[in-house]
Amino acid sequence: MNLWNRLLPLGILIVCSGCAGNALIKEPAELIVYGDHVVSMVPGELPLTDGAVAIHDGRIVAVGKRDEIERRFSPAATISGRNKIVMPGLVNGHTHAAMTLLRGVADDLDLMDWLTNYIFPAEVDLVDEDFVRTGTQLACWEMIESGTTSFVDMYYFPDAVAETVVDCGLRAVVAPSLIDQFEHDEPDGESSLRQAVDFIERWRNKSDLVIPALGAHSVYTISEVGLRRIADAAQSVDAPVAIHVSESLNEISITSERYGATPVDVLEMTGILQQPVIAAHVVHPSESDIAKLARHNTGAIHNPTSNMKLASGLSPVAKLRSGNVAVGLGTDGPASNNDLDMWEEIRLASLLAKGDALDPKALPAGDVLAMATRDGAVAIGLGDEVGQLAPGLRADLIQIDFSEVRHAPLYNVISHLVYVADSTDVVTTIVGGRVLMRDRSIVTIDEANLRAKVRRWNGRIARRLKLPIYEPRND
Amino acid sequence: MNLWNRLLPLGILIVCSGCAGNALIKEPAELIVYGDHVVSMVPGELPLTDGAVAIHDGRIVAVGKRDEIERRFSPAATISGRNKIVMPGLVNGHTHAAMTLLRGVADDLDLMDWLTNYIFPAEVDLVDEDFVRTGTQLACWEMIESGTTSFVDMYYFPDAVAETVVDCGLRAVVAPSLIDQFEHDEPDGESSLRQAVDFIERWRNKSDLVIPALGAHSVYTISEVGLRRIADAAQSVDAPVAIHVSESLNEISITSERYGATPVDVLEMTGILQQPVIAAHVVHPSESDIAKLARHNTGAIHNPTSNMKLASGLSPVAKLRSGNVAVGLGTDGPASNNDLDMWEEIRLASLLAKGDALDPKALPAGDVLAMATRDGAVAIGLGDEVGQLAPGLRADLIQIDFSEVRHAPLYNVISHLVYVADSTDVVTTIVGGRVLMRDRSIVTIDEANLRAKVRRWNGRIARRLKLPIYEPRND
Repeated sequence: MNLWNRLLPLGILIVCSGCAGNALIKEPAELIVYGDHVVSMVPGELPLTDGAVAIHDGRIVAVGKRDEIERRFSPAATISGRNKIVMPGLVNGHTHAAMTLLRGVADDLDLMDWLTNYIFPAEVDLVDEDFVRTGTQLACWEMIESGTTSFVDMYYFPDAVAETVVDCGLRAVVAPSLIDQFEHDEPDGESSLRQAVDFIERWRNKSDLVIPALGAHSVYTISEVGLRRIADAAQSVDAPVAIHVSESLNEISITSERYGATPVDVLEMTGILQQPVIAAHVVHPSESDIAKLARHNTGAIHNPTSNMKLASGLSPVAKLRSGNVAVGLGTDGPASNNDLDMWEEIRLASLLAKGDALDPKALPAGDVLAMATRDGAVAIGLGDEVGQLAPGLRADLIQIDFSEVRHAPLYNVISHLVYVADSTDVVTTIVGGRVLMRDRSIVTIDEANLRAKVRRWNGRIARRLKLPIYEPRND
Repeated sequence: MNLWNRLLPLGILIVCSGCAGNALIKEPAELIVYGDHVVSMVPGELPLTDGAVAIHDGRIVAVGKRDEIERRFSPAATISGRNKIVMPGLVNGHTHAAMTLLRGVADDLDLMDWLTNYIFPAEVDLVDEDFVRTGTQLACWEMIESGTTSFVDMYYFPDAVAETVVDCGLRAVVAPSLIDQFEHDEPDGESSLRQAVDFIERWRNKSDLVIPALGAHSVYTISEVGLRRIADAAQSVDAPVAIHVSESLNEISITSERYGATPVDVLEMTGILQQPVIAAHVVHPSESDIAKLARHNTGAIHNPTSNMKLASGLSPVAKLRSGNVAVGLGTDGPASNNDLDMWEEIRLASLLAKGDALDPKALPAGDVLAMATRDGAVAIGLGDEVGQLAPGLRADLIQIDFSEVRHAPLYNVISHLVYVADSTDVVTTIVGGRVLMRDRSIVTIDEANLRAKVRRWNGRIARRLKLPIYEPRND
């Protein structure tokens, strides 16, 4: 028995500030993830070459050069960083995950045609707890595979969503969707709200992975009374509110007629902005709307693919950002995208910003990558938890492989991630220190079981909407 | 020896019109490519389920249902179509392939900063025949891998480009780039032109895969005398002309000052439009420009990523199409994209058209897919050769695998290709009946050799531009 083993049980610690690299006793780390390049997304930090991230108890304990991390930590496991970039997991600030089952049921249609002839009929007749469980699991598969580690979900059957999120190992703000002005919804808005509040109380502190929230569809599909009730409920349980805001010109004109005000004004007037709000879309904000969103620390989520595909318009991201609104990125539901690929949103957001401003310097690579990570985390209320690789934060991170020929040459890591990398380049996905995907193999979802369940739903949806049934063949 | 074997050497043929399916003697086919779905892109034809394409002598001899093709043909080889979509190979109507070596050297910069501080210095000091050979081979790798079968290249050292194209097995319009008003170019425009004409004469009829052409940089970087000489030369050798047209507002204003006319007017005035012209970009055409382009059967190539990234503006694709201009899609060079992924152009073109028109029905999936295939082929002068799966056309086709979980469910094949499929889903690439990629393995390029050459150029370019050197490690 050497000296150290005799001293340690006595609680004697050798403190040696500044010489951790030379300490004889190494700190424990559950996992060290290496990277030829480490992109921490911490403001001001440049990409680190030949780096590593040490993880313990689900959190990042250190980020640094390989040598430094190896001197300091004794890891239980490691993941090689050869030809890989390590960065924070992506934050998808707005989606309706279960709608992945409706991916591509109808495209290139007017919004109301799409909604009333395809989406609502499918939802009214078919959406039950199993639909939500299957659809959410399918979405989680796609998000894990493409490097998304946190997302904000607005849909129905929130317990099914939350349980699926925990099983898959992702992190999510789960917001049951409240709406009181569409036929297909249950008439009693109060009962929905009570159920949503019960859900929040059930899930508060139940899992690190689930942040329960209220989901309000929008100010034009909920009555003023309904909005005030939601504001009160959110305050009483101190929950964030996720809501579609200023998505279309139609919404602006309805709100203007009904209230003589903008959707953001209505949010403020009804008290909703008193709580943390995750505002999806924000395509048509006025100058004063932007000031209000900033004053209330409301997060805005830019959904460029959905906004283009449904022809809603282009969110003034530069104005929101310069007005001190935290702006994240989202895919929206796969019924209007038609996937959950955040890399496409990153690239599209950057390209649209330049084209719109007629300025090739607009929304440069570093800024749009921040929207998909650090800023997105702030926008959804998780800025102190995820979105950067820094000691103390949750260990939500991904590895991107750049060994394929199509990645050569690589001159600038940040711009390469934005303008070259694809979702299929993600090879490792880790949430809270748990490895959800390794070498592109997802370990938390049974693929055969998922495929069987999706196949059943595919058939039911196709029959309901009179679409042809195309299924991958296993025979 | 049976009856058939005795009759055949005598040249006796059993003709049975309309009963080919029951014929006892089958027609030969070098290759049959199957597909759970066959998307022929022939106007009016719907996707065919459980279909097949029969190929002989480098051309498509039949497209039909599996049973029908199997009854009629006796193939030397087959490729399974299980969980695959077969469609025409993509046509990349505008690129500078060798610039793939400059992928990402500089992004998010003003055009003139980008050109004068990065692109030109690299090109002036470094571009030689080996640069072009290596860069073009790297580009061909990426194009084969992502399902592009034909492309239009504008660059230098056209023999090196053409030889590389033939070696890789792709099909290309190869246009040596002529320019006479930039310092970095050789002062004697006439000598460049003579060399280009010599190239065309050397390569005319040399290979089915290479269509030699003249490449004029633009009307604002070539003098009027130069443009007239190019028009005369093109006419004398009856070659198409590839040229950048109306790419930026800067070009419009220079042309307006110099000629009191639009770039298209100048093309007409100098006689260039008398020849088949492939006009890249066409971002800012006037109404009368569009009429002129249509009258001269000029093809227009829309490059949405490049036009957004360099903030050139948005081409009025709907107006061009309704004005009877054949519009294809292009990636532009990877120095301004930063890859050669036509699937991104397809998706972006569709999204931009909807966002711009504020109409979700604008440029629906079928139309934008036509731009990437049939219409693109017409735009680059190959409309009678490629771009559709139809008997008599060259056998340029690809298979897209949809077996991954992220492809489920699949309700509509055409919209799935546009809004869900990625370049990495392409598994088979065939040009002129030759299989260039099978199960994602490229058979015409030696990967290790290509990687070694790219690594050398990566180092040289990074040193010249004082960029860090990041290379995949093989140790």
